[in-house]
Amino acid sequence: MQIEERLKELKDKINEKVPRGINVTQVEFEGPELVIYTDDPKRFADEADLIRILARDLRKRIVVRPTILEDPEKAHGEIKSVVPETAGITDIFFDADTGEVLIEAEKPGVVIGKNGATLREITKHIGWTPKVVRTPPIESSTVKQVRQYLRSVNEDRKQFLRTIGRRIHRDLPARGDETARKDQWARVTTLGCCREVGRAAFLLSTPDSKVLIDCGEKPDNAGATPYIYVPEIYPLSSLDAVVLTHAHLDHCALVPLLYKYGYEGPVYSTPPTRDLSAMLQLDYLDVINKEGRKVPYSSNEVKTYIKHSVTLNYGSVTDIAPDIKLTFHNAGHILGSAIAHFHLGDGMYNIAFTGDFNYAKSRLFNPAINQFPRLEALFMESTYGGSNDFQQARADCEGMLYDTINRVLQRGGKVIIPAFSVGRSQEVMLALEEGMRTNKIPKVKIYLDGMIREATAIHTTYPEYLNTDLRNQIFREGMNPFLAECFQQVDSQDLREKVIGGDPCVIISTSGMLNGGPVMEYLMNLAQDEKNALVFVGYQADGTYGRRIQKGWREVPMGRKGTITINLEIVTVDGFSGHSDRRQLMNYIGQISPRPEKIFCIHGDENNTIDLASSIYKRYHIETHSPMNLETYRMV
Amino acid sequence: MQIEERLKELKDKINEKVPRGINVTQVEFEGPELVIYTDDPKRFADEADLIRILARDLRKRIVVRPTILEDPEKAHGEIKSVVPETAGITDIFFDADTGEVLIEAEKPGVVIGKNGATLREITKHIGWTPKVVRTPPIESSTVKQVRQYLRSVNEDRKQFLRTIGRRIHRDLPARGDETARKDQWARVTTLGCCREVGRAAFLLSTPDSKVLIDCGEKPDNAGATPYIYVPEIYPLSSLDAVVLTHAHLDHCALVPLLYKYGYEGPVYSTPPTRDLSAMLQLDYLDVINKEGRKVPYSSNEVKTYIKHSVTLNYGSVTDIAPDIKLTFHNAGHILGSAIAHFHLGDGMYNIAFTGDFNYAKSRLFNPAINQFPRLEALFMESTYGGSNDFQQARADCEGMLYDTINRVLQRGGKVIIPAFSVGRSQEVMLALEEGMRTNKIPKVKIYLDGMIREATAIHTTYPEYLNTDLRNQIFREGMNPFLAECFQQVDSQDLREKVIGGDPCVIISTSGMLNGGPVMEYLMNLAQDEKNALVFVGYQADGTYGRRIQKGWREVPMGRKGTITINLEIVTVDGFSGHSDRRQLMNYIGQISPRPEKIFCIHGDENNTIDLASSIYKRYHIETHSPMNLETYRMV
Repeated sequence: MQIEERLKELKDKINEKVPRGINVTQVEFEGPELVIYTDDPKRFADEADLIRILARDLRKRIVVRPTILEDPEKAHGEIKSVVPETAGITDIFFDADTGEVLIEAEKPGVVIGKNGATLREITKHIGWTPKVVRTPPIESSTVKQVRQYLRSVNEDRKQFLRTIGRRIHRDLPARGDETARKDQWARVTTLGCCREVGRAAFLLSTPDSKVLIDCGEKPDNAGATPYIYVPEIYPLSSLDAVVLTHAHLDHCALVPLLYKYGYEGPVYSTPPTRDLSAMLQLDYLDVINKEGRKVPYSSNEVKTYIKHSVTLNYGSVTDIAPDIKLTFHNAGHILGSAIAHFHLGDGMYNIAFTGDFNYAKSRLFNPAINQFPRLEALFMESTYGGSNDFQQARADCEGMLYDTINRVLQRGGKVIIPAFSVGRSQEVMLALEEGMRTNKIPKVKIYLDGMIREATAIHTTYPEYLNTDLRNQIFREGMNPFLAECFQQVDSQDLREKVIGGDPCVIISTSGMLNGGPVMEYLMNLAQDEKNALVFVGYQADGTYGRRIQKGWREVPMGRKGTITINLEIVTVDGFSGHSDRRQLMNYIGQISPRPEKIFCIHGDENNTIDLASSIYKRYHIETHSPMNLETYRMV
Repeated sequence: MQIEERLKELKDKINEKVPRGINVTQVEFEGPELVIYTDDPKRFADEADLIRILARDLRKRIVVRPTILEDPEKAHGEIKSVVPETAGITDIFFDADTGEVLIEAEKPGVVIGKNGATLREITKHIGWTPKVVRTPPIESSTVKQVRQYLRSVNEDRKQFLRTIGRRIHRDLPARGDETARKDQWARVTTLGCCREVGRAAFLLSTPDSKVLIDCGEKPDNAGATPYIYVPEIYPLSSLDAVVLTHAHLDHCALVPLLYKYGYEGPVYSTPPTRDLSAMLQLDYLDVINKEGRKVPYSSNEVKTYIKHSVTLNYGSVTDIAPDIKLTFHNAGHILGSAIAHFHLGDGMYNIAFTGDFNYAKSRLFNPAINQFPRLEALFMESTYGGSNDFQQARADCEGMLYDTINRVLQRGGKVIIPAFSVGRSQEVMLALEEGMRTNKIPKVKIYLDGMIREATAIHTTYPEYLNTDLRNQIFREGMNPFLAECFQQVDSQDLREKVIGGDPCVIISTSGMLNGGPVMEYLMNLAQDEKNALVFVGYQADGTYGRRIQKGWREVPMGRKGTITINLEIVTVDGFSGHSDRRQLMNYIGQISPRPEKIFCIHGDENNTIDLASSIYKRYHIETHSPMNLETYRMV
């Protein structure tokens, strides 16, 4: 059936179910959603269960939107005039994708009004559906820029979503003959991060669709990309979708490159992943540029990526190809990190890619989800999959960090903590803030260098992605640990030099594996002094300076920068990881439901993936694999 | 380096080594060979070891050709005038690929003359290098047509070989950076015949080259092709080479289709495989046509395939891509059947694909080769790989065949033997001829229907591909068993009906698995009478009528032709197979040298491949796999 006929048929079905008097003006696929345009969205919304029933019967994600959306500028004025000044509105963001207007205010209650009176007043005046949120305690320039940019490309984006929508809902081609029709299959091709950590990339393909999962860099200073030049994924325009599990560069750095090489489709991620990845990609270009290496793409491609991004919240089942539905689930690793679950065909097969995940509750997040409606195959990270990769209990590791800091400060040294700007930094910040507040460590300055503060701001923009305790602490108790006065952002070379030459202190700086970033300057200047300490709180991949120093190298050649002599104390504190350790990985499988038929151990050193695969097989009798890069496994 | 510079450099090197006075006029890549053109090919040939030394030093296959080849028609006349009439010349074939002229004569000695005098006389008169062979005892119209056709497209073919030659010897692109340069790999993608018999097809790929090995049909009447539509092999113009292990349709049927879909490169095979495959492909089109099914390609594509064929003899090491060398070795399965051995990169890796192979000596062939210079991975057929797949000893199985024939003829019945026209038929013919000659069975007519006689003719055209005993019997002892008077070709519907209605006899007819061909008519007419017998002498694949009847079906629905009632006696005689049985497969690995690191059991039912893989692993501790179709395995 042609798409126009299909839309007409859908419109007829909708009109049958909609009460007389509600006028459905148009029905259109936009991105993964079926959008129903109506003159009277309010009455549509008032009909209890109508949208739910339509969604169930049509098996589509339904969005209802007014036929005519008021001009944002005019609507902006009307909202301002209706809402009392005391609400403290800080931003009004018109999201043309959803027809919603996001009103950020210091006092959301005032915007809503008594029993929702003010909100109803707004709705009466403008077509947009108002959504009220509390103004984030730290303003994120990334979020602001992303929103501004999306506003500026509104028309292009509308067209793009329509194109994608039609592609997702295209009819599948009739197969040549009976045999071929029966010949359904699904396969996964490993394009990176197999028997190694970094450059995550997988291709999921069926006879009809192709989806790329992640596209990251290898954090080894050599700029190795995933194998995105193999014929399986060419031309890139043949990809239906790119799915991003989370914003760390080893999963997302090369997504903008895909647009340079001809990809034109959507990138699905959670909203925080979109914003964090844009921030990290721009920082990545900046770091590479400063090191005089060749940048793989420019900030223009980051913009192109943002223009093509489609955000989904956890739990939302979404068509991304004619025969593939995607659902994100909390992975507990960093803000917005997701396990990507794919439902293939009409109940044919279910595959999940964990991305990086943490099966322990952390200061920031709830543990990763391991309950799925269905699951036949699991691609599972194995960073700490080795039989000896046990992390300390959180309390022990925090105690060890406190001890180290006390020891170093006492002897007049400085503590350098290299950390990913996203995730590890916030965990360590929360631990240090509590340590100072409860007098377990002295109240010295904690300097944050790199994108850490900006990343923290993005965390407070998406409180619904944090765990309940932290959300309550920030918003209910009004005691935002991220705003504690011990933290100071380093935002100039001048201050950086002052920190290096100044009093004993703690420095948290990127990058987390010493493969570039401002931490290198601290290390270059502070490594010679044995009073200082370098504290690793995260995984150090093979090939990084971090791994070399951790292994005990005392003379580290740094390319053009010469050789650093390492005299400072080297400490590894294990428990802050955003990854599951060996015990948690095994428990994750022990408690997973349903139990998959096949498990692929990926994203870990060769020994770890093989060890984990063989241990899971022995303990649970599930078929396991430790694939190499560039292999293809048949799922069904 | 550009190819022209490279040729110039090669010409300079050659001129350094060639004695003064021999003029090298041109050096050119033609197909896999480096062709040295000279005014004086005779003096070139006279320099002992010159060609061998050049081949060794330049690491190329060297061919020396006169700068000017005499016009074939004129040369034809000159040969006729020099050679005495009594030689009985039956064909003179000018092979422009090699600069050779093949003189077929009943008395080759007369063409050669005393101490080679006549031959020298020929050489003096024409530029072509004469090669004398005995006239085959049975004339093959296929061989004649193939040669005629190649002669007619001589100019196109020359251009094609030049293009291919330059492509094979192209410079490899420089890799982006240090890491990528080191990033060598080789992989094999399974496109068919995994956990099944039929539709053989494998893709061997490196960062620089792609080679397709086999491209066969699935013999199940449903027309399933290998997965040649997956992106890994698209566009087909990106393939460097197609390599054909042997001429059976489940390995070669769809090779012409590749040209329809855009392939433009060479197909490498042995000379008998080229001729047999053309014969079988044309017959395949004929059978499909008669059954009213849609033909996948026309005879034009068979011609295109022949035009692009490049033949190699066993043992000849040949560049087929910048980083891949191919060598064929005897597989013992059918005439010209080969194990394809690939040497990758500069000593990087060696992979062999057995195709179908027989590790026992048969009446026709020597056992398959299992000694290789190097070997890391082996893709091995597993047709009879199940733990109970033991074939009878040859003497026992021939005894069983004789007993069956005696029993059936005695009761006045007819014996139908469905057989592949190529291989099995000739084995059975030889056994029956001997049985009659030694009075083990009565001297009745043995009718041959289908392409059997033509296939037999091709066997006698390539005596060097038969084993020594048979070759001696045919040529030295002058007792050609294929010409015994018991055999009669069925070449008309009239005769076919007479055979059906006539006296007790033996009928050998194609196809071998009862999936089409003239055997179906015999079966339809003779199946009801319990005096008759159907004797299976070859493997019956899943999905064929042969397998169903063998399993005991007594009412077989035949589609449009209605249902056959099976009353005749069903006998399976195991030992004629051109395949190794389970014991031979295990012995093949036990005695293989060197021992490969990995073995992939393919081309067998699911149970057989899994059983064989696990047994090889247990007995020999070699890593084994039983891949599924559509998977990709990393070799290195």
